[in-house]
Parts: sequence; C-alpha cells; structure tokens
Amino acid sequence: MAGNRGVAYIEPGKVEVQQTDYPKLELQDGPGVNPANIGRKLNHGVILKVVTTNICGSDQHMVRGRTTAPPNLVLGHEITGEVVEKGSDVEFIQVGDVCSVPFNIACGRCRNCKEGKTGICLNVNPARPGAAYGYVDMGGWVGGQAEYVTVPYADWNLLKFPDRDQALAKILDLTMLSDIFPTGYHGCYTAGVTTGSTVYIAGAGPVGLAAAASAQLLGAAVVIVGDLNKERLEQARSFGCETVDVSAGTPQEQVEQILGVPEVDAAVDAVGFEARGHGHDSTHEAPATVLNSLMELTAAGGQIGIPGLYVTGDPGGIDDAAKVGALSLSLGTGWAKSLSFTTGQCPVMKYNRKLMMAILHDRVQIAKAVNATVITLDDAPRGYQEFDSGAAKKYVIDPHGMVKGSAGNGRAA
Amino acid sequence: MAGNRGVAYIEPGKVEVQQTDYPKLELQDGPGVNPANIGRKLNHGVILKVVTTNICGSDQHMVRGRTTAPPNLVLGHEITGEVVEKGSDVEFIQVGDVCSVPFNIACGRCRNCKEGKTGICLNVNPARPGAAYGYVDMGGWVGGQAEYVTVPYADWNLLKFPDRDQALAKILDLTMLSDIFPTGYHGCYTAGVTTGSTVYIAGAGPVGLAAAASAQLLGAAVVIVGDLNKERLEQARSFGCETVDVSAGTPQEQVEQILGVPEVDAAVDAVGFEARGHGHDSTHEAPATVLNSLMELTAAGGQIGIPGLYVTGDPGGIDDAAKVGALSLSLGTGWAKSLSFTTGQCPVMKYNRKLMMAILHDRVQIAKAVNATVITLDDAPRGYQEFDSGAAKKYVIDPHGMVKGSAGNGRAA
Amino acid sequence: MAGNRGVAYIEPGKVEVQQTDYPKLELQDGPGVNPANIGRKLNHGVILKVVTTNICGSDQHMVRGRTTAPPNLVLGHEITGEVVEKGSDVEFIQVGDVCSVPFNIACGRCRNCKEGKTGICLNVNPARPGAAYGYVDMGGWVGGQAEYVTVPYADWNLLKFPDRDQALAKILDLTMLSDIFPTGYHGCYTAGVTTGSTVYIAGAGPVGLAAAASAQLLGAAVVIVGDLNKERLEQARSFGCETVDVSAGTPQEQVEQILGVPEVDAAVDAVGFEARGHGHDSTHEAPATVLNSLMELTAAGGQIGIPGLYVTGDPGGIDDAAKVGALSLSLGTGWAKSLSFTTGQCPVMKYNRKLMMAILHDRVQIAKAVNATVITLDDAPRGYQEFDSGAAKKYVIDPHGMVKGSAGNGRAA
Amino acid sequence: MAGNRGVAYIEPGKVEVQQTDYPKLELQDGPGVNPANIGRKLNHGVILKVVTTNICGSDQHMVRGRTTAPPNLVLGHEITGEVVEKGSDVEFIQVGDVCSVPFNIACGRCRNCKEGKTGICLNVNPARPGAAYGYVDMGGWVGGQAEYVTVPYADWNLLKFPDRDQALAKILDLTMLSDIFPTGYHGCYTAGVTTGSTVYIAGAGPVGLAAAASAQLLGAAVVIVGDLNKERLEQARSFGCETVDVSAGTPQEQVEQILGVPEVDAAVDAVGFEARGHGHDSTHEAPATVLNSLMELTAAGGQIGIPGLYVTGDPGGIDDAAKVGALSLSLGTGWAKSLSFTTGQCPVMKYNRKLMMAILHDRVQIAKAVNATVITLDDAPRGYQEFDSGAAKKYVIDPHGMVKGSAGNGRAA
Repeated sequence: MAGNRGVAYIEPGKVEVQQTDYPKLELQDGPGVNPANIGRKLNHGVILKVVTTNICGSDQHMVRGRTTAPPNLVLGHEITGEVVEKGSDVEFIQVGDVCSVPFNIACGRCRNCKEGKTGICLNVNPARPGAAYGYVDMGGWVGGQAEYVTVPYADWNLLKFPDRDQALAKILDLTMLSDIFPTGYHGCYTAGVTTGSTVYIAGAGPVGLAAAASAQLLGAAVVIVGDLNKERLEQARSFGCETVDVSAGTPQEQVEQILGVPEVDAAVDAVGFEARGHGHDSTHEAPATVLNSLMELTAAGGQIGIPGLYVTGDPGGIDDAAKVGALSLSLGTGWAKSLSFTTGQCPVMKYNRKLMMAILHDRVQIAKAVNATVITLDDAPRGYQEFDSGAAKKYVIDPHGMVKGSAGNGRAA
Repeated sequence: MAGNRGVAYIEPGKVEVQQTDYPKLELQDGPGVNPANIGRKLNHGVILKVVTTNICGSDQHMVRGRTTAPPNLVLGHEITGEVVEKGSDVEFIQVGDVCSVPFNIACGRCRNCKEGKTGICLNVNPARPGAAYGYVDMGGWVGGQAEYVTVPYADWNLLKFPDRDQALAKILDLTMLSDIFPTGYHGCYTAGVTTGSTVYIAGAGPVGLAAAASAQLLGAAVVIVGDLNKERLEQARSFGCETVDVSAGTPQEQVEQILGVPEVDAAVDAVGFEARGHGHDSTHEAPATVLNSLMELTAAGGQIGIPGLYVTGDPGGIDDAAKVGALSLSLGTGWAKSLSFTTGQCPVMKYNRKLMMAILHDRVQIAKAVNATVITLDDAPRGYQEFDSGAAKKYVIDPHGMVKGSAGNGRAA
Repeated sequence: MAGNRGVAYIEPGKVEVQQTDYPKLELQDGPGVNPANIGRKLNHGVILKVVTTNICGSDQHMVRGRTTAPPNLVLGHEITGEVVEKGSDVEFIQVGDVCSVPFNIACGRCRNCKEGKTGICLNVNPARPGAAYGYVDMGGWVGGQAEYVTVPYADWNLLKFPDRDQALAKILDLTMLSDIFPTGYHGCYTAGVTTGSTVYIAGAGPVGLAAAASAQLLGAAVVIVGDLNKERLEQARSFGCETVDVSAGTPQEQVEQILGVPEVDAAVDAVGFEARGHGHDSTHEAPATVLNSLMELTAAGGQIGIPGLYVTGDPGGIDDAAKVGALSLSLGTGWAKSLSFTTGQCPVMKYNRKLMMAILHDRVQIAKAVNATVITLDDAPRGYQEFDSGAAKKYVIDPHGMVKGSAGNGRAA
Repeated sequence: MAGNRGVAYIEPGKVEVQQTDYPKLELQDGPGVNPANIGRKLNHGVILKVVTTNICGSDQHMVRGRTTAPPNLVLGHEITGEVVEKGSDVEFIQVGDVCSVPFNIACGRCRNCKEGKTGICLNVNPARPGAAYGYVDMGGWVGGQAEYVTVPYADWNLLKFPDRDQALAKILDLTMLSDIFPTGYHGCYTAGVTTGSTVYIAGAGPVGLAAAASAQLLGAAVVIVGDLNKERLEQARSFGCETVDVSAGTPQEQVEQILGVPEVDAAVDAVGFEARGHGHDSTHEAPATVLNSLMELTAAGGQIGIPGLYVTGDPGGIDDAAKVGALSLSLGTGWAKSLSFTTGQCPVMKYNRKLMMAILHDRVQIAKAVNATVITLDDAPRGYQEFDSGAAKKYVIDPHGMVKGSAGNGRAA
C-alpha cells in the first residue's frame, strides 16, 4: 500500500515511469499544482486502483513540447478504476465499485455544474473554469496513468458500472467513456448529427474515430472521415465509414464523389490547432486549415462541432500569429451560410451514462472502432512514441494486469 | 398606375430617386439581376403599395462602395405594404391586406424553408442559398424603397396584420418587423438570452438597439450596449440600457463597474466586418475587434449571436486579409471557455409573428428604442447621408404619405 | 386515362374495390366531402399514379364501424406515387418524379405549417385543424388506395426520391415513409428516446413495430414491445426486440425480468382507444389500460409519446364514458413522477426526409421490421380482413404491378 | 440556542405553534419520518435561522385533511434563511450567508440530480423519487415554518444571495424563489409561453398569480387568469392581467371576448385536484374540470403546463373515482389538437437563479403580484385560516422580526 508508479512528462519527446507517492485525500504540492489548491481537503474523494488508463492525443500536445507543462508532471486523464478507499463525505459510491472517471473534474456544487456544464466547473481550478487530471494549467490534479489515483467529489464525478464482472468483460469499450467516446459524441451532437445526416469528420485519430462511431450511433446516413494518415483511414473504413485522403487535396471533390454533392449536413473538427494543410500543403502545419475547409464543406444552415483543441498560446506555433493562438478564419464564408459553431471540452457527464448503456447492451463497438490496444504501465513510453508516429491504435494502459482482452481487440506484443 | 419611383444606388456615396418601372408579376432584367432569374413567372406573388420602407445599415455597405453592387440598383429590403394586386396562385392573402415583408425572400417549398431556415432558401437565388430585395448578389429581386414593389410567394412570405386601422396606428413599430426587430431578437435568441441574463450588445446602431430591446423583452436582468458614438449610446440609455463607450478602451473594465464582474452571460455582435478598434485604436477599422472582445467578455459556457454581417470579399478592406474576408480570431480564447457562435441572416419568419403580437399588445416600444424617424421618398438621399454620419435615428421612408406619426416618434423636419 | 379504381368503405366489416372517377385538379363532391371544400381549385396539386398504398390500422377504426365514416368513402392515406400531371402553380415537382405523400395534408402557407406543425394545418379542413386522404372528418380529400389520386400543394407536401430506379428497388421500405415509419419515430422522439434509452412500446401492430425500429435507429439500449398477439410479438423479436405478453398480466413484472428494474426511461402508446385490458382482463376493451399502465411503467422524469389514436366520440365504445371518449386516468400517478405526454398525429414532413436518407443508405430495414406484404388492388378486401384478424403483416397494395418485391419481403400468395 | 418553535398540523382544520427541538445535522425520528431516514448523518447540511417562510396552497391540502399527514407534523417548505451552522462537508456556503431554499430536497449526486431533475431526486426519500420539507410522504424532513431548520446537501441546494443588505431589502420578493415563483414560471415554461403568446392561467391563487407574472416576464402578449374568487381576480387585474370569472360559465366565451378567438396559445393548470366545476357547477368539486376545459381552450399544437397538484389517493374525494385519484379526461379532445402536457413538481433549481437576477434588477415585482403579507410566527394559525377562506394574499411568516417591509407590500395588522 505504500507506493505508486506513474507516467511522468520529462521533456519534449520524453516520458518515463516514476515512483510516485501513494494518493491521499488531500491535494499535495507537486509539479504544476496551483498554489491555491495545495492542501485542499478531499473528504469528498476516493482513491482508485486504476483498472485502465488511456493515452490521449491531447497528452501528446504536452509531450511534443507544445505547452508549458512542467517536468515530472504525472500524466493521464482517461481513467477507469476500482474504489479502494473513500472519504468521509462520500455517501453513494462504495469501496469495490468499478467506475469510469470523467476527464473533466467538477465539484457538483457551482452554477456551471448545476447547469450540467461540468467542463467549466468554477471550483476546481483557481486559474480558470475547468480542470482535468494530469494536465498543464488544469488545476494541478495528479494524473491517472498510474497504479492509484485520487478522484475528488466522487459521488458527483464517478459513473459506477452496474456489475463488476460485466464491466471487466467489456473494459476495453468502457474505458473509452472517460474521454474520447463522449468527446466524439459531443462533437457530433453539437454538430446536429441525427437520423439520416451526412457527416464529415476531420481527423481519424482516436477522437475522430470515436466521433465517426458516434455519428453512426446517432443514425447518420453517411459518415465520411478525412485524414492524411492512410493507416488511420483504413481503420475508419473497417467499421463502415467512407474516407477522404486530404493529402490529395481539399475534401470537397472527394465528398462529391461519395455523396453526389460537395457538401455535408454536419461537420466535426477532431484535429484542432496542430492541423496541417491539405494537398501539397499537407507537409506543414496550417492551423486554420480544418476550420476553413469545414466552412466550405458544410451546407448552409449546418453546424460545426469543434472538440479538437484550440489554444491561446502555442510555443511551437509556426509563426507569430500561431504562437498567440490567432487563426486566420474566413468567417464570411460561414456567415453567408448561417453556420453555427460549438467549441470546448466535452462535458463528459452529459453523455457517459447513456453511452455506457449502449456499450453494455451491445449497440456500439467503440473499442474496435478506435482499435484499442492494451499495454503495461512500463510500456507507456513506447505507447506514446508509437502513437505520436501515427499508429492507428488507441493505447490502453493496464497497470495491474486486470484486462483479460476482449474479442477483436489486441494486446500489444 | 403606370409609373413607379425608387431609391437607386449610383456610385459610392451617392443614391438618388429615379423613375422606375411599375412592378410586374414576372422578374424582369435589370441591374444585378441574376440571368437565371430573368423572366421568372411570379403568379404566386403580389404587388404592394409600399406603406413604409426603412433604410438599413446593411444598405450602407453598398452605398459606401464596400461591395460590388451595380449602378442603378434599386435599394430597400425593409418593406411594409398594402396588397394592390395578386397573382393567380395566391390563395390566402387578399387585395387590401396590410402586410410585413420579411427581408429574406423564401419559396416555402424547399428543404430549408420546410425546416424554417428561410434565410437560406434554395430556390430564390441561382447563385447561392438566400435572397433579399434590392441587395447585391441576392438574386436580383427589385428593392422596395419605392412606391410599389413585387413580393413573390406571397402566401408564404407575407405576415398579414389582423386589422388595417390598428396596423396604421402602430406602423412605426410594425415597420421594424421586416428586418431589424427580428434580426436583433435573433441575435439575442441565438446568444441564449433569457430571464435574468446579463447581456452585452456590441453596436448601438438600429440593429444593436433592436437587440437591446429584444433582450429586455426576453427578460434579461441587465442589458449593456457598447459603441463609439455618444449619441447612439444616449439613445440606448433612453430605454433603460447600461452603456459602454468603447472609445475609452476595451469593454471589460466598464462592464465590471456595472455588474461587479468583467463578464456577461451572453453577447451579440451587431457590428460586423466594418468594426473599428477599441480605445486609441478606435479611429481605424479592425474587423476582428468585436468578435475577439466578445470572446474575452462572455462567461465560460456562454453563446455569441452574430447578426452583424461578415463578408467573403471586401473591396474596401484595410489590408489583404480583410479584402478576402479573413479575420485574425483568437479562437482558443473561446475554446477554453466552451463558447458557441451563431452566424448568418435572421430567418425573419421564425420570429415576426410573435414580435407583431408583442407590439400590438404594447409589450415593447421598438420604434422609440430605435428612434424611428419618418422621411419622404424624396428625402431618402438625405436620410442615407445622415445615417452614414452616425445619426442615432432609424429612417423610415413613407412614399405615399400614409404615416400619421405616432406618440414619441418624430417626423423629420 | 378515363377511369380509376379504388377501395371503398361500404359498411361495418366490408370494403370493396369500385370504379371511381379519374382525379381532377379540383376537389369534387363525394362521400364525406366537407361542403366548404367542394369545387376548391387545386392548381397547386398533382395527379399521381399510385405505386404503392398501404392499409393502415387507423383505416380499421372506420371499417370496424367505430366512426361515422359514410358509405363509398374511398380509403387510403398511405400513398407513394409517380407524378403524371401537375397544376400550373407547381414549380419544383416534375412529371415523372416518384414521391412519398405525407398522410397529413398541409397547405404550406398557414401559421401552423410555417411552424412545422403540418398535422394541424389550418387551411385544408373547414371543420378543424388537420386533414388526411380518405379519412372520416378529415376534409373530404379522396383516398389513395386506388390507381390514381390527387395531391394538393404538391411542392410543399411531396417528398421526391432522388433516383427513380433506386426508389423502385427500395419501394417496400420507402412506402412506409407516408405514415407508419414517421409515426413510430414521432412516438419515440416525443418520448425522448435517445442513445442508451430503455424503451417500452405498447402495441406490436405496424405502428408499434415501426416505433420499435425507430427506437433502435435512435440508439436505444433495449427496446421492449408489449402485445397480446403472439404472432406479432414473434415479429418484434425477429429484429432484436424484447417482448412482453400482456395477456399474462401487467408489464412491470416482465419488464423487471428483462431489465432488472420494473421501469423504463421512455414509453410509447401505439395502441390507442381500442385497447384491451391486461392479464385476465385482456378479452375485453378497457380504453384507459395502456395509458394507465405506461404511467406505472415509466420512470420518474420520463416522457410518454402517444401516436395511438384517441377520439372524442366512439359509437362502439364499451360504456357511456367510452362513447364520448372519456378515459378514467390515474393522472396522479404520472404527476408524482413528473411525467410528460405528447399526443396527436405525427407531422410527417418533420421526419420523412431524414428517414428516407436512413433507408437509402441501408441504416434501417423498416419493411422487414413490419413484415411488408404486397397485394394487388383487387386483393385489398382480403388484406383488410386478414389484418383485422391479427396477421403480423403490413399490407402494401400495388395497383399497377410496379413492385418487384425485395429481399425478405414476401408477396402474398 | 436551546429551543425552537414551529407550526404543526394537529387535525383537519387546525394548526398550532409548538415548542420543538432545535435542529441537528442528523435526521431525527418524528411525525411522518420515514424509518429508513432516521439517524441519517447530515454533515453536508446547514442549520438556518429562518428569515421568511411562506404558507403554501399545498400545505392547505394537508390542513384540510385531504391527505394522510400525521398529527404534530411541522409544516413549511417555502424557506429563506441565514446560515448559522454548517456541517463538516459544506465547502462553498458560509455561516452568515442569506440563502433561498428550494422546496424540493435533492442530493446533487444521483442520476436525476445530474440531469437537473431535482424534483425527483433518488436519494432523499426512501419511499419514492422526490422529497420536501414538512410534507406528508415526502421523506420526513422537518418543516421550516419555524425559527430554525436543517437543510441537507447545502452546497447543492442553497441559492446564496450575493449581498445580505440587498437581500433583506428585497426579501418579500426573494422569499417567493423557494417555491411559487419558480413553480409558476415552470408552468408557463412547460406550456411553451414565449414572446407574443396568448396565455390562460387556471387559478388565481398564489401559484396562479406567480404564473401570470411569469408569463409577462416571458414576454406573453396577453395573460388571462380564470378563477371563481372575485378578490383574487381583482388581484390579477392589479398587475395587468385580463380575467375570466368561471363562476359565470366555461372560459371560452369570455376568452373570445378578450382575444377575438376562443382559444389561447398556451395554458397552465394552477388549480389541481381540488378543482370545482364551472358555471352553475362551481359550488362543488369536479376534479377533471380544469384539465378538460384547458384541452378545449388551448389551440391545436399548444402545450399545457400542470403545476397544480394531482394525487394518487384523496381521502376526501367526492366519489370513489376521486378517492383513488382517477380523473375522467376527454383525452381525445387533446389528441385531435396534438396537445402536449407536462406534470409534476417544479425542479426549483432550474429556475431560481435566473428569477433571482430578475428580482434583483427590478425586472419583476413578484411580491406585489401575489400580494405578499407579513405575519409573525404566532399569527400563522390565523394566516392558514384566512388563506383557506380565500384571501387574495400570500402569507409570509417572519419568525425573527427581520422583515422591514417593502414598498407596496403590507404587513398584516
């Protein structure tokens, strides 16, 4: 019970597994912890034995050195775990419960939480609305790519699985509830995807693939995924999506070949600020490319969901505008078509229960869609590297060897 | 019955009243008429004797030479009139009815119209979704700043007033139903303004003032209007708004003095692409100023309504980016706060009936709010000039001398 | 071109195929025609060659003598056809187009149509809001169980299929767009069915089965269908539904066996006023049974969609209360659980386009779900009889022999 | 600090002020306390010094003997107070805060609370979803018509007023936030009341008057209130409502005189199960009268909000059906018009913050609308009696003499 191990960011391009402190029900000082949060009592919290914890594309922003993340920050905001200890104020969650942890930390007591806007909770990050585990500028909550982790406001935040055995049997699907499945679904939902929609998803990384699976679940008629990475496009086709290779040019022409018209009802930006150009521009970054092309591609009256991350500052930006997060957007194109846009973190709690029900009743195969791939905690550095090089896999860390594997989802060699 | 007179755009800075053809129930060739629309039969249309027709801020974009509007284009898309002739397919509108004309022309038969998206009708403009009277690139439908005008698809487009005498008695309020009142309301509605909201409206021109009156009607707790023009700010204060003078700097500080916090629940951009900077930058154009400041000003989780016009090309833009409609937007600021954005023309039919009811039952004083000022058709060129110079007035042209005046609303000397 | 043949109601229990007049673009006098509608010009209409026209459960109310339908009323409100003639005001629909006809007739010009409430159009039935083809008290529009039929306001009402060959190949699915597929979907939509919902559908007739298929399309986790008819329950199981045999008692216990809890998130009443009791009461009518049991069965905070027909008078009602349409409802049960209820005809146009897209892109197999069964026009009387006796089939009349059959859907011997 | 005094129900027609225990942060045994709730720890709760606590029409159901309320039950669910002690788990509410208490008790941790459905919280009443203070079958939480009261889950439940002095100055308006203002608003909101609506409110008691004020705040064009009580109708007229005296007959004819049509866009039932008949039937109870008349009165496509209480059992019901809560409803009337219905307790937290903002910024005068009348705790029995006899007043108990009075709102002699 004494120790803990976690995946820490060291420097650009490097993460390593470190010995760390066993979690407490009090927020300790550490790398990136907001001073105003130090010493915060967490009697409303629990300590989880981590069952699974996934590597996320947004972790890569930090690891690539595109943020101000401090060294030794323990990473990981996609967490599923078993409760091993609970604080005195925890009333409805019990030791032994296996639960999904929304990546956005929320107090369940502020105006925004009461309105269901848990991605911008007012009480968990002294710097600004919204917090997350193991993420720069997100309040200093310790990350969950570890053996054990603390989750505050546990009665509010945790989604308990109804049956432990059933949960462990479907763990590779359920592990996606902490972030990418709700995030992809949120992208589609805010884009207005519904029965019979034609949808374009920019980006075939895990969030893009989760958005594509969500679009199908929402009843879309045709789901088209665009990317530069041929392996990821192949993954998209594996579950019934159409694909567009944007290294061959802007998407309109290819979309027209698929649909007969060069436009879609709804579009999702699952790429964000590290976008590259299209066609012959695809070898370098062009941060406004995706949004400008989605305004061209979306039919008049449509909506664009933007779960892809845009930042206010990017030390690695390609030019002065990019470094301060300024994008050159052709807003007039969108205005002439009466488009609307929804940005921001997905408020996971809005969706995770219903998506859990869809998983438990076999209505969706999200682990297959994103190609869930199990690795050990010690293999996490390799997982980061492979993912960064474009592997069409979603890496699921299994710190305690609790994952039995599941049909169709591989365990990495 | 033979003739007609209308206000025509001549060249940048110049409009004049011309003799024009009496309208027909067929679309004739003329300045700016899309060739594919020439000769179109309008048996579904009516001819209106124009009771009132207002000068709009968006007309000024043309008159200032900021568009490709051709000479001799008859202007005017804010029209209220009496039916004097109807086509053979008009079934529910009768000769003698006094009606409001939504500025956006719609067929009532396409997918978008069936979904209530009348601002982007698919059948009225061969060039792209959406049309309007007397406006460049909007299909070539003749403008209504004239004695008579044709309105197509009359059963669909026209809002009939229930009683002629009542309508004429309240005509200065009802004339705002053709555009600015619904447009201002749409800005607030899409910004999520509701009971108890704190709201910031950028721009105290007629649309901004109509948005402010709409915010009050929607139950907002505090309505703050920002502008550079002191006379217009005074007009905003005349009906209970708080104001911010952006020539003194960015709005946050002044908003904090009013509300105790430097942010609002909801924001509306009633300025558009001809925005000027704030503070010492307020002497020159800075087209992204309003949107960037609204992202700073809107609380996390808020919505921004953008009825202010943004264009895809601006011959008079201040630099190369502006000339092609590219804005340098700090989208990351909005993303971190999970903001959403709604752009585009107001679909007038979505709101005009309910706003008519509010006017007829004295729930709102929109003519007073925007300072409706009656002028003759011959005085239209002077009205354009005064409006362009910043007069805090909404000019209402009265081509047939049918307006009796109404308490509190002046007739211009 | 001279003649026409149609299925007419003769007397309780009897329909027959009659020679009738070829349709005109003017509303003629005839059985059940509202006097105020006689002679109405229909230049906005088209004449359709009927490709398919289905027998509906609501037709049975008339044929069983449970309404005041007059003899010789030509039946049929589920119509798909090819345009063979069009009126002078029809602009966007062309001769040769194959189209689906919403069963509710709407003008596309009144307040309700403008708000999308096409089931209660104000201009098509002098007696009250809302009209339909071939139905008692619904305006006197001639029914479509015939070779040819007139459709008014064709640009507004008709849903054109994008491709004729594709349409004919999928005609047994597309024929369900005129009524039962949107009606079932509306029941689920107004019940709040969404991703992960548990749903109970009362009634396994065609509307109930269409609701069940809709619930699946909407992403429901579990769809449970209840009925007394074992053949129809078997049909529900054929596409993945769970079932409850209400002849064995009230649904709660069986629902608890399926879900682990005796309640569902959402419920749909696809039975209406001719409901029978549950358990040992199931041999006789008990018109409030379904609604009362759904209030018991629906979880607190849930919604109940009521596409099943309730009437204001029922000559065949079991007692005085039933004869005047009074139901003994335990509303307090619903009130304590904060339930909400949506009644009325489905506004087909709100859903038919998106469901067409889902059919054309193979996202739903609606013909299989309802067991579409093709018969000739001459076989219609037999179809009525078999359907009334409880056959688990949806009878599709094929007046011109245009249906090729389609995999899995039988042509009746 | 030792004692407490509260208003207790004794027997039908009788309440009295009793010495009671000072509240604890643990749920004690007592009249009506659910055994499963006894001994429940409330470290998440606070003890309030009651500033104001109102007598509610739903208290009268108990006092009239229409429920199974046990003797000595301390009444009172409309509570505003100052925090004098807080439990160890209360983090964001502080001693000294003046707060409004939503009448529905909610945990802030269950599925329903997370979805904003705080009226049907799953964790506060062992008997069924939903709880309240001082109410039969609502969990056994001690009522607040007292000097002091315990409020559980204080961070979640309490709405803190931003400024103590401002709050006390407006306390007669703010005291309505605990129940009737949100409840009336909820009735209108779920009836779809919006800008320009015509609205009928059945019942001019405090909830009906609060609904009428809410309709105005929502922008309704015309608000019509119906009742039998002439004094209450006069009160409705005092703030701009039209009125209908249902003792003179059903409302349609009077509504037609007001509006020109015998129907309204939206309707609210603020009466509930103790309704009397209309016209010459108005001398005796007829529990389905209001709902049946609202179905007649509401235009096709409208919505009916039902905040008025309906019960599952009524010992004082007029006949066997009424005793078990069965209503004889003409649902077919509503079905033919596609009406929808929303029942149940108002989830106060959904609305109270925005209504507080409207009060604090003088957008609504709710105390005047309902004729707030201050009485001492000792005068509560008289208040109950006067209210029961039909006084057009809302009685506000002031246990500590903290109410200074406020312009236009009387203090009872």
